[in-house]
Amino acid sequence: MGVLLKFGTLALVLAVCQGYEDIWDYDGNKLKDTDHVSLWPMPQKLQTSVVAFRLSSLKFQIVHAQHSSAGPSCSILQTAFRRYFDYIFGYMKKQGDKEPKKTFGGEEVVELQVWITSSDSECDGYPGLKSDESYELSVDQQSAVLRAPKVWGALRGLETFSQLVYEDEYGSKNINKTAISDFPRFAHRGILLDSSRHYLPLKVILANLEAMAMNKFNVFHWHIVDDQSFPYMSRTFPDLSQQGAFQPYTHVYTPSDVKMVIEFARMRGIRVIPEFDTPGHTQSWGKGQKDLLTPCYSGSSPSGSFGPVNPILNTTYEFMGSFFKEVSSVFPDAYVHLGGDEVDFSCWKSNPDITKFMADQGFGTDYSKLESYYIQRLLDIVSTTNKGYMIWQEVFDNGVKLKLDTLVHVWIWWGTGGYKAELSRVTSAGYKTLLSAPWYLDHIAYGQDWQNLYKEDPSDFNGTEEQKKLVIGGEACLWGEYVDATNLTPRLWPRASAVGERLWSDQSVKDVNEAYIRLVQHRCRMIERGIPAEPLFVGYCRHEYKGSL
Amino acid sequence: MGVLLKFGTLALVLAVCQGYEDIWDYDGNKLKDTDHVSLWPMPQKLQTSVVAFRLSSLKFQIVHAQHSSAGPSCSILQTAFRRYFDYIFGYMKKQGDKEPKKTFGGEEVVELQVWITSSDSECDGYPGLKSDESYELSVDQQSAVLRAPKVWGALRGLETFSQLVYEDEYGSKNINKTAISDFPRFAHRGILLDSSRHYLPLKVILANLEAMAMNKFNVFHWHIVDDQSFPYMSRTFPDLSQQGAFQPYTHVYTPSDVKMVIEFARMRGIRVIPEFDTPGHTQSWGKGQKDLLTPCYSGSSPSGSFGPVNPILNTTYEFMGSFFKEVSSVFPDAYVHLGGDEVDFSCWKSNPDITKFMADQGFGTDYSKLESYYIQRLLDIVSTTNKGYMIWQEVFDNGVKLKLDTLVHVWIWWGTGGYKAELSRVTSAGYKTLLSAPWYLDHIAYGQDWQNLYKEDPSDFNGTEEQKKLVIGGEACLWGEYVDATNLTPRLWPRASAVGERLWSDQSVKDVNEAYIRLVQHRCRMIERGIPAEPLFVGYCRHEYKGSL
Repeated sequence: MGVLLKFGTLALVLAVCQGYEDIWDYDGNKLKDTDHVSLWPMPQKLQTSVVAFRLSSLKFQIVHAQHSSAGPSCSILQTAFRRYFDYIFGYMKKQGDKEPKKTFGGEEVVELQVWITSSDSECDGYPGLKSDESYELSVDQQSAVLRAPKVWGALRGLETFSQLVYEDEYGSKNINKTAISDFPRFAHRGILLDSSRHYLPLKVILANLEAMAMNKFNVFHWHIVDDQSFPYMSRTFPDLSQQGAFQPYTHVYTPSDVKMVIEFARMRGIRVIPEFDTPGHTQSWGKGQKDLLTPCYSGSSPSGSFGPVNPILNTTYEFMGSFFKEVSSVFPDAYVHLGGDEVDFSCWKSNPDITKFMADQGFGTDYSKLESYYIQRLLDIVSTTNKGYMIWQEVFDNGVKLKLDTLVHVWIWWGTGGYKAELSRVTSAGYKTLLSAPWYLDHIAYGQDWQNLYKEDPSDFNGTEEQKKLVIGGEACLWGEYVDATNLTPRLWPRASAVGERLWSDQSVKDVNEAYIRLVQHRCRMIERGIPAEPLFVGYCRHEYKGSL
Repeated sequence: MGVLLKFGTLALVLAVCQGYEDIWDYDGNKLKDTDHVSLWPMPQKLQTSVVAFRLSSLKFQIVHAQHSSAGPSCSILQTAFRRYFDYIFGYMKKQGDKEPKKTFGGEEVVELQVWITSSDSECDGYPGLKSDESYELSVDQQSAVLRAPKVWGALRGLETFSQLVYEDEYGSKNINKTAISDFPRFAHRGILLDSSRHYLPLKVILANLEAMAMNKFNVFHWHIVDDQSFPYMSRTFPDLSQQGAFQPYTHVYTPSDVKMVIEFARMRGIRVIPEFDTPGHTQSWGKGQKDLLTPCYSGSSPSGSFGPVNPILNTTYEFMGSFFKEVSSVFPDAYVHLGGDEVDFSCWKSNPDITKFMADQGFGTDYSKLESYYIQRLLDIVSTTNKGYMIWQEVFDNGVKLKLDTLVHVWIWWGTGGYKAELSRVTSAGYKTLLSAPWYLDHIAYGQDWQNLYKEDPSDFNGTEEQKKLVIGGEACLWGEYVDATNLTPRLWPRASAVGERLWSDQSVKDVNEAYIRLVQHRCRMIERGIPAEPLFVGYCRHEYKGSL
């Protein structure tokens, strides 16, 4: 029998309230064996026990509960059942199809009933900012039960259930008596990948969506184009990628690729929010769209180089209207990220037509007014597509008038008061906000830097309770200057897992030493599932990474 | 025809003497097109030209020259021919076996003759510190010729030849008229991998031997055991790995594994130098070898923990004698690395038997004398196996009497004068030395840190010409605390390539901007050959990494 059954007769029930801290037994002793609680991220409420059940790969089933509002036609759940069955039992099926002749005395869990409790399971929909991801999981008899109002919570609960299953020393699969009630602390828990500084093959993006689901992330922020390349293939403006991609056939995302990413993400309860950053960061746009960018001047004549989007031409806004109409139909999410960061004014300053426009508009020499003018018109255009928008913090800083449902994305970590002061300012102005400033994962250093990521808290700034409620979450950003298919996945995981727990679990879950123990096991679990997550520190996994090198 | 043939009629011949700096034509114009000179590391002498020859995958052969002292029975060359043919033509063969019907006007190279010029090719031997790696390569007619005194030079020349071949825009393989005379600046050019902090599957080690050959490295310094685990399976003392490995079956190197690594390395002209570091760094040894380590005391009784190797017992030296006898027969290289770094004296100080021994020997309270006593006896033991030894610098610093052929390995980068002062001290004492201090590749940082690695020069210290000659080379070290199969290869390459060029090429080859251009192409070449070398900066490769993620 499993190691843990040695304690089975004691039948200790361990209650952990108000967020996880440690696992204690009735007598107040801290339990040392944490094998059976290697959950990541830690659920909001967890009761666990050393009483173990067995799981047989031949008998165990994941089924729709009788009264569930979702059934076999719900492909999100059906593919999730397959995925989690595979995670739980791995290759065991291959080793023989006969039931073992030995019988063991222990009790067994033979099914997990998945019960979608609300009348609309949302199975055919897309996840969104307001999606209900809550679930309740009960493992205490032959039928384990996972209750969730919507499929989104069921997906999170299936991940948790799969993490509860462990292999004992005999190779048997076990799960301990457990009751969990869980929901995310923040609604927006994202990963930003950048496919412009380096092209990311589809395979890499999909693998990272898998890893995101293992860490309960729910937003893939796709920074799809930038100065360096334009891999997004537009139906309306095919020249953008034909001219602007690193290579127009091998280094682009076709409409079918984009669809596949969105559907693969939907199956995992992950939103795909594309970012089309303007008016800066647009050098690659200019290659396939004449007159879109501002011609820079050297003295009295054009220098041949180009600056940000040209904000004084009507053709610019016509183009943006058509382009974002396409974007809004290709990407189903209710939000699109419009960028707006790091606009360099030097080219605008050099251009005599811009100078004249500035004078005509009465902007004086304040080019941030011109930037705001552009963004204002862009926001009006995007509003007509019925999308909400996310923008980088500069747009707010420059005083652009924003719809009240705008999400202000805070990323600047320097300056007086740092990002905490910005969170105060944005929320006191009544805007929703999300945090990335301390979570730039492209910044690497020797050692366990995940601990620094883990210690940051998006609520930790000066503000009222009302202001704190306006923080909808955060994103870990892996900018692409030094990252491509060769090193992206191990650089991102398990460092991003630290951010994942911060955004999902209760605020009280913050003990780095305790987290280390769980995260070590979680990273080995990711490796067993085929994700080459790098090591936290010295040690080993039972099954080391065997991917191609 | 290839792009370069547009200039073919000009028949420019470009001479670059006294080390590579730039490619100039007769009129003193710097050439911009560097596609055809993406050599890494840069050869000592290179004459190249824009006159291009074609190579056909159906006609081209690599053959033994008529007067070569090596023939088809030389398996080093035969497997190298296969390997380089494959690198050059990749999957082209698969696309059809018929000769294309079109004919092109250009001239063609139909064979590379490999001519081992000395009477003993050394084909059946192992590479060593004094191996001749020089070669001459001439591409200027149908038969290209590679001359080398020994197979080791032929291997380096084959790598260079394969790097000269480039694909034009039509997919044709081309090579430009070229004459190269080449030899390494330093004889010892190593990579240290650490299989103790994390176990490294054989696949990872072999992949990195491949990458080493692509960068003309010739020493694999295998830091095979350490405190954390003992994966080396000893025939004489099987309990060392049975008890000391992370896992005694899945996380060990069997005698057959070790043989395979050594043979795989030999095929590439790479020496395998194992490090068995004592008396510190030996916690894992103690698990399978009773009484080997010093029992630490807490007050007047043993604390249950152990310190460095116990230097006062005769059994210790008997064990070391047997153990290193085995090591010396398993590893054919003339050198073994004996470690000797970072010995912590606190446990020795706590132990009353050690205290008594110190008094008996008249060591007073100077524990470095005890350390020296141990090392001295160990060196005497290893000398009887006819091996030379490498040791970390502390052994020299502590004044241990060393054989004059000892290699002192400099790694400490802090302290007055830094490692340069140590190089001065070691060489002024007449010892050979090699440098690792500035090349700890486990230390990572945001950005292009390869440039810092590239700028270091092992000859750049205060000393006479005689002292400089005692510097035999260096090693890039990738210690394993934060590295395993998931992230090792992209973390090592192409950063280690910077060290590779420093150790191979002429001292004058040091222009970082010029190196960048070649290294970008070299890293794409490594990717095409299946090595997931990470990007230097923004950009793309024609064929991105497609390994499993």
